[in-house]
Amino acid sequence: MAEKRIGQQTIILSNPPRIISHHCTVGPMEGRGPLAKYFDDILDDDLLGQTTPEKAELAILEQTINKTLNKKSLFVQDIQFYIAGDLLNQIISANFSARSIDTSFLGIYSACSTFTQGVGLGAILIDGGYADKVLSATSSHYQTAERQFRYPIELNVKRKPTNQHTVTGAGAVVLASDGDGPKITSVTFGKVIDLGIKDVNDMGSAMAPAAIDTLTQHLKDTGRTVGDYDLILTGDLSRQGKKMFTILAKDAGLSLGEKHQDAGVMIYSPQQPVGAGGSGCACSAVVTIGYVFKEMVQGKYSRVLIIATGALTNALTFQQGESIPGIAHAIVIEV
Amino acid sequence: MAEKRIGQQTIILSNPPRIISHHCTVGPMEGRGPLAKYFDDILDDDLLGQTTPEKAELAILEQTINKTLNKKSLFVQDIQFYIAGDLLNQIISANFSARSIDTSFLGIYSACSTFTQGVGLGAILIDGGYADKVLSATSSHYQTAERQFRYPIELNVKRKPTNQHTVTGAGAVVLASDGDGPKITSVTFGKVIDLGIKDVNDMGSAMAPAAIDTLTQHLKDTGRTVGDYDLILTGDLSRQGKKMFTILAKDAGLSLGEKHQDAGVMIYSPQQPVGAGGSGCACSAVVTIGYVFKEMVQGKYSRVLIIATGALTNALTFQQGESIPGIAHAIVIEV
Repeated sequence: MAEKRIGQQTIILSNPPRIISHHCTVGPMEGRGPLAKYFDDILDDDLLGQTTPEKAELAILEQTINKTLNKKSLFVQDIQFYIAGDLLNQIISANFSARSIDTSFLGIYSACSTFTQGVGLGAILIDGGYADKVLSATSSHYQTAERQFRYPIELNVKRKPTNQHTVTGAGAVVLASDGDGPKITSVTFGKVIDLGIKDVNDMGSAMAPAAIDTLTQHLKDTGRTVGDYDLILTGDLSRQGKKMFTILAKDAGLSLGEKHQDAGVMIYSPQQPVGAGGSGCACSAVVTIGYVFKEMVQGKYSRVLIIATGALTNALTFQQGESIPGIAHAIVIEV
Repeated sequence: MAEKRIGQQTIILSNPPRIISHHCTVGPMEGRGPLAKYFDDILDDDLLGQTTPEKAELAILEQTINKTLNKKSLFVQDIQFYIAGDLLNQIISANFSARSIDTSFLGIYSACSTFTQGVGLGAILIDGGYADKVLSATSSHYQTAERQFRYPIELNVKRKPTNQHTVTGAGAVVLASDGDGPKITSVTFGKVIDLGIKDVNDMGSAMAPAAIDTLTQHLKDTGRTVGDYDLILTGDLSRQGKKMFTILAKDAGLSLGEKHQDAGVMIYSPQQPVGAGGSGCACSAVVTIGYVFKEMVQGKYSRVLIIATGALTNALTFQQGESIPGIAHAIVIEV
């Protein structure tokens, strides 16, 4: 049984679940970035032979899930919950992927912080004894996001330097009450934070306040300091949002230095035509599953705080003059 | 600690949370229907003085939440989780409503079964000791749904008799580890079920297979029969989906008779211009909060199974020839 959390947002898991299997897939563009060697699969064709980008995103997600299960000879009937979400309207990739997963499905939406919301919820379901195994997955695709949120790609609209590039890819994990793999030891579900930012070309800065809020709340709840973590990975603030995050961290009296990295900054090189960096649900997912887990196994990191971030907007509300609130959910992973 | 659920989907709550406060709001059309006397608030103006239907849906949701809290002098700082979702792209009503709710937010998407997914998740968080109080809410609006999923209302597109009319309204509940009110005693999270139905003008029939799947699984998991419930409320199958549901129930050997009612059928009279009946996230929510809870207090029902249903589609995928999978999440409410 977990501790009660009155006035707090962090749940310390008393039966920390293990990530017993995981897999990540990325597109060709991500495969040309600096993290290429960490990804399990790099696609030659970001359409994966499909006729539309939406069908491609679904196929990438399904393939990633299947590989996650097959890697450890897991079967869908061993899984009590499938939790997933994505950026598309009515989380359609997640919903369609659940057609072939014959277990209780929980659809979630938390924009680009979907990965940590899903893994956090799954961890709680196992910690509380409601499940032995939970599958959680997420996906995003440059082409589906561009045409849904911005313009048809064929228009070739000039991008601003603060724009982010949606990561094409998917990540999936299986959490279990026992087995081998990194442990999820605590979860901090964030609040929706709105500082009134309205620039849809700078989502990174819109999400940074939520990331700081979740980080400071996490440290307060746990009584820990930045020094207790080997890595604090935000995502996907990108270069522009990271600037704002660094300023806000200083204001909050936090000295992050090299401890802080951002998934949106790491996934592409500055030479790639991606504006301020990466974004999309897959961004935090593939950087965590690809880079962080593998470096944990190598012994580089032993306790990592992942703070995935999401910008809460849609294609209509920004035209209606609404601001862009942000949210950030954090999980602690330990080996 | 709940029972493990290997091969099952139902969680029997060992510390059943109470619904200590609830409120429901509906639009003028719903206020002219047969359930009018049960609703807490009936709006004269379905725009609630706002300039766009999206702003109106948000205002209705926020007003409903505030009344839910104020009714029992509850404060946001007493609540550990806010869980919400809606039909709009990127669940924007839910996300925006969370701007003023200073606690951990979990965004969910489960189409018109959002109400039971949210209440079910909240019940588990309390049962497991992760929270003392959880706020869960949902909303829908005829005008926002029409223009997002179908056509601008101004086009006055002729509707088919199997179409459903999206309920304008919102419902909110506060669940608590102790206090007075109906108890949530078990939760059955559904699977995504896809029989390949593609007719977007008949979502009821697309959802009926999911409702049957969840009902039969729930009965199997709990060892109960239809006779153990005073009411089995599906929603929102509507008149057309109810026909399919009744056929499938018969096939499954279930004799439902008068025990079964559907929120989408109940909320409007056959004389109202609503096609086959009501739909939308608010449909199951306001019929449960309005009708069911009040009739439970009056002694008409003591154990009710609510099976909210969702059709998993979006405005793009049906044009791409995709089918419409369904999902149904069930909760048991007892007094």
